[in-house]
Amino acid sequence: MSQYPDTAIAAGPGDPRALRALTAVALDALADGAAARGGPLPDGGPDAVTARTRGLLAPVLPEHGVGAPDALYDTVRATAQGAADPGETHCVAHLHCPPLAVAAAADLAASALNPSMDSWDQAPAAAVIEEEVTAALAALMYPAEQRPDALITSGGTESNLVALLLARERVRAATGGTGTLHVLCGENAHHSVHRAAWILGLPAPRHIPCPGGRMDPDAVDATLAELGERAESALVVATAGTTDAGLIDPLPELALAARRHGAELHVDAAYGGPLLFSEQLAGALRGIEHAVSVTFDLHKMGWQPVAAGVLAVPDAELLNALSLRADYLNADDDTEAGLPDLLGRSLRTSRRPDALKIAVTLRALGRSGLGGIVEHCVRTARQLGETIDAHPALRRRPGPVGISTVLFRPLAADGLPGDEGDALVADIRRQLLNEGLAVLGRAKAPDHDGTAKLWLKATLLHPQTAAADLEDLLKLVAERAEPTPTAAVVTLPAQQARLESTAL
Amino acid sequence: MSQYPDTAIAAGPGDPRALRALTAVALDALADGAAARGGPLPDGGPDAVTARTRGLLAPVLPEHGVGAPDALYDTVRATAQGAADPGETHCVAHLHCPPLAVAAAADLAASALNPSMDSWDQAPAAAVIEEEVTAALAALMYPAEQRPDALITSGGTESNLVALLLARERVRAATGGTGTLHVLCGENAHHSVHRAAWILGLPAPRHIPCPGGRMDPDAVDATLAELGERAESALVVATAGTTDAGLIDPLPELALAARRHGAELHVDAAYGGPLLFSEQLAGALRGIEHAVSVTFDLHKMGWQPVAAGVLAVPDAELLNALSLRADYLNADDDTEAGLPDLLGRSLRTSRRPDALKIAVTLRALGRSGLGGIVEHCVRTARQLGETIDAHPALRRRPGPVGISTVLFRPLAADGLPGDEGDALVADIRRQLLNEGLAVLGRAKAPDHDGTAKLWLKATLLHPQTAAADLEDLLKLVAERAEPTPTAAVVTLPAQQARLESTAL
Repeated sequence: MSQYPDTAIAAGPGDPRALRALTAVALDALADGAAARGGPLPDGGPDAVTARTRGLLAPVLPEHGVGAPDALYDTVRATAQGAADPGETHCVAHLHCPPLAVAAAADLAASALNPSMDSWDQAPAAAVIEEEVTAALAALMYPAEQRPDALITSGGTESNLVALLLARERVRAATGGTGTLHVLCGENAHHSVHRAAWILGLPAPRHIPCPGGRMDPDAVDATLAELGERAESALVVATAGTTDAGLIDPLPELALAARRHGAELHVDAAYGGPLLFSEQLAGALRGIEHAVSVTFDLHKMGWQPVAAGVLAVPDAELLNALSLRADYLNADDDTEAGLPDLLGRSLRTSRRPDALKIAVTLRALGRSGLGGIVEHCVRTARQLGETIDAHPALRRRPGPVGISTVLFRPLAADGLPGDEGDALVADIRRQLLNEGLAVLGRAKAPDHDGTAKLWLKATLLHPQTAAADLEDLLKLVAERAEPTPTAAVVTLPAQQARLESTAL
Repeated sequence: MSQYPDTAIAAGPGDPRALRALTAVALDALADGAAARGGPLPDGGPDAVTARTRGLLAPVLPEHGVGAPDALYDTVRATAQGAADPGETHCVAHLHCPPLAVAAAADLAASALNPSMDSWDQAPAAAVIEEEVTAALAALMYPAEQRPDALITSGGTESNLVALLLARERVRAATGGTGTLHVLCGENAHHSVHRAAWILGLPAPRHIPCPGGRMDPDAVDATLAELGERAESALVVATAGTTDAGLIDPLPELALAARRHGAELHVDAAYGGPLLFSEQLAGALRGIEHAVSVTFDLHKMGWQPVAAGVLAVPDAELLNALSLRADYLNADDDTEAGLPDLLGRSLRTSRRPDALKIAVTLRALGRSGLGGIVEHCVRTARQLGETIDAHPALRRRPGPVGISTVLFRPLAADGLPGDEGDALVADIRRQLLNEGLAVLGRAKAPDHDGTAKLWLKATLLHPQTAAADLEDLLKLVAERAEPTPTAAVVTLPAQQARLESTAL
């Protein structure tokens, strides 16, 4: 096979025999590791998991290798055994989705062929696939006559960074290099907005109050008014699907406030963007078409392995500031001779073809199929909210359920003095993590009286999980809140709970 | 299986049956696509490849899906049929490696389990694996007593960006926020150094002359002297393995020049870093231990699928500027209770566990095994250089062969007036691309008289390709330079060629 043992390559001419054999090893290791784990995450907490994983793998760089099959089996098995697997019903902490099998299988082909998206002669067909994918995604939010376009990014964080970078360059161009971009974002904005401003050397974003968890258009209006002429160098960053609560800022009103002062609107729809796949739910993003750029992310509610980020713009020309020339990748004479220029499509140079798995998923499920899973997750969250509303030992944060996120806490926490209620909530989460029983998230958010409290968070992204499957999880939380056994607690079946209006 | 067709997830409890079945489909599609391609890249040139690929896939987002198996097979087959596959002997244009089968199989597990590296409760074991990998890689270049550490990045471009960002923050901290980072880099530096300065809002880097393709330490010394006190806010960026020629800047002399003026040294060893795996070749990077940060990249001479970037520092504290707090990912009380904090390990938030495939590869091959492939590629390049030196219709760029990169051009190009020689070189490359026969790179670099000329570039990264396997490729180039058949050309066998000293 090869003069060097274990150096068989993944693709090349002929049948990928080595890859077939090693893929089978990896799949066995995944199954064995999941069986050894036996739950949503490994038990014992961080120290135990770390010691166990180190023991299975050390040393990671031996002088002489242990051979491909053993290294692969052992390492993948240890990773699966020590995973917090979003494919498990009780793993609902984060915007951390279980990837579709079809997307993961497509991603194997990306790894094996290794097209690099920085020049045509490294990715002739993959470049076309990316073009088709970005055009289709941009068309979800912008009308075709505007020439919408999109970039593939490493996620919402990079999308927000590029959005702020492009806005910074528009301000520079408009002011002959003298102006500064002023960013306004809600208190509910993702931390990546602040991080992007820091990286780009911009002033820290101005914080807009978010009563009820949504950005206040009147406060945006007032802040832009204070900026005076500088408002024309401002970017209002709204969120469509907040990380903590899944809420959607009032996009039409924010677009109007921005336009009134000559400012621009960017929408971070990393979470909420895929609502556009559903005819029934797309209306929740009304107003998004006014945004100068939209962050979109298919490794959240798009069931892709990380990374599958997108940044969409209404007009391809808005991306021109990224254009770049490097003689070895896109020499002028090559471009003139018809070799497509890919270099200005990213901040990265070498770049994995993340569009491949996205293309396969879009084509496999179609818009209606993807919309169906989105609707399933939204429905499951509403039903879980109703189950909690009817629960004798738990209560939901007042207000609507956001997209597919439910915040709740044990009633027992409310009876405790000072910070002890929040401490109990945090402790229950860590207990369940350490016992390997559940991966729940946490979020600080206002209660009905405006006081910020700590809540447990369930983010529902599993295509096959129903609200009834989560009743055991609620029971675990209730039990941890009351050290004595709670066998007498009666949970109302989800189907009996009252349907109520939500944010969507 | 599921209430929604085609929505089976990749991992979760139990045997990954759907993933097994779909992985088999992807492997068949890879084999069929490669057979249909029948060469290093598809023939017909960009327009034909685009039309063919579009025809196979449109529409990428239908209203109703075509189902997982069909979408997967068709899309992966089209991608393989239209790939420039670095696993093929004649695909040698770029620092674009054929990934090892074992690394691609490990990457499948990363896609299926989807750990996200931004919090412990999304990646309990994967976080440990990353820690082990980064420690082992940082220890390749820095002594253990300094507490070396490293980050996993999306590639050399992100590593260089983070290196400049950290340097910018050190200057800000040292000057109370008033100072500016001044970047000095060679004319031979990768374009990502300039791009990073632009993104970060820094002044454009000062260009240092590179006689013979290497950064001139005297010129660095002179430029730092001109900066006066501002030299203490300067970062000298050296390259260990230039993209165009594989040359290594004189690191010890550059480190000395920087230190003399209180400046810092960053080394972009995206290409050359893996020489450290080889006892025989590691000496070429002598001086790298003086760098305040080192860019390192295993999707070049490390045989990983993209992305596998690294940024190493001699002391973990140098990474502190990246630390970040977001209550939902690393709340203070969680960190105090022992939940590891991963958020400050990257500019990204959600992040694929690229360390998994790296760990599997390091353990499979060991340091000696990886060093062996590095030595093979370096040896192949030297031998190819000798073959070209003995070729009647081709000549190599004067000077040593750099790492595993060989620059050459047909003698016929030298006889042409003005720019016509360069135009012939560029045209030969495009002809071979359009005919689907070879993927050669291009580089503008000085000839023996200092005149910049265009060269064909062969970057040798295939673990199984020997110099003799490339004689057909040289023949193709020679034939395209002389339209009349060159059957009479005699190529000396590689083994007869004289061994000569090189840059290493």
